[in-house]
Amino acid sequence: MAKKSQGLIIVNTGLGKGKTTAALGLMMRARGQGLRTCMIQFVKAETGRWGEFKSAEELGIEWHKMGDGFTWKSKDIEETAAKARHGWEIAKGKITSGDYDLIVLDEFTYTMHFEWIPTAEVIEWLKEHKPKQLHLVITGRFAPEELIDYADLVTEMTNIKHPHDEGYKGQKGIEF
Amino acid sequence: MAKKSQGLIIVNTGLGKGKTTAALGLMMRARGQGLRTCMIQFVKAETGRWGEFKSAEELGIEWHKMGDGFTWKSKDIEETAAKARHGWEIAKGKITSGDYDLIVLDEFTYTMHFEWIPTAEVIEWLKEHKPKQLHLVITGRFAPEELIDYADLVTEMTNIKHPHDEGYKGQKGIEF
Repeated sequence: MAKKSQGLIIVNTGLGKGKTTAALGLMMRARGQGLRTCMIQFVKAETGRWGEFKSAEELGIEWHKMGDGFTWKSKDIEETAAKARHGWEIAKGKITSGDYDLIVLDEFTYTMHFEWIPTAEVIEWLKEHKPKQLHLVITGRFAPEELIDYADLVTEMTNIKHPHDEGYKGQKGIEF
Repeated sequence: MAKKSQGLIIVNTGLGKGKTTAALGLMMRARGQGLRTCMIQFVKAETGRWGEFKSAEELGIEWHKMGDGFTWKSKDIEETAAKARHGWEIAKGKITSGDYDLIVLDEFTYTMHFEWIPTAEVIEWLKEHKPKQLHLVITGRFAPEELIDYADLVTEMTNIKHPHDEGYKGQKGIEF
């Protein structure tokens, strides 16, 4: 049962809320236990994610915004794909550095879903290069089947009810 | 559309992981935006939740362990129910105090599910007493239908894959 003490591959997927916030909560927990944590954001959040960014800074969680300059509204999809691939190269460096116990690849599923990076390539690379003790969290909708097969813990977040349906506007401290 | 700027009732339920961690992530975000946050834990976690507790302390998130002295393994169910009811009284005081922008009632669904406090009583009380701007997050399995009807945002967390199935043991910084 060598697997017991190894780093986990955790995937938070689904169409609901809570994928990134659960990853943040996990980082908060890990940080409180003294683990070295790193967040790599693959998509530029329109809200800037200021709230969590500020708290992360206070807790000593390293934070990288790889998606700067593009959002889902990007018109140049080639540029978006190139930036995602660049982000993955940066992530690889962090993963193999030995400097972290837990790394979050936030909204990384999209790079695979949209085939900017082939899922098989990501998984083959992780199998070969991810340090055994490193916990890796990947969030985002549309997690590919191959990623789910490879992961240890996969949670699907589903909207049962969402205030956007009722003309609600995102609020400071809750949505960003 | 008066509802737009009002505090939300958020419920994280389902059998999967991420209910409490998503609430923690939300508190982290809210705290980073300067919101005054308070966590009320209704069940004593066997792991103590040291990681998140320490980080919460650093961020200035108020934290109350109401479940001290009982866990799900409690043999005296009457005592457990009494402690849950006591916790609800404390929570009421926090909710009406005006001292907070966001309050989390962690694993509070169980008190309703097991009928230690009637769901209708909780909802009637909240309708009458919850300050309009206060965001309230309730986590736990088995969220009663009436609570879902009353809530603004309800997310269900489902296990797609869980390492406990494979003889995995909870790890420091990940599970606690």
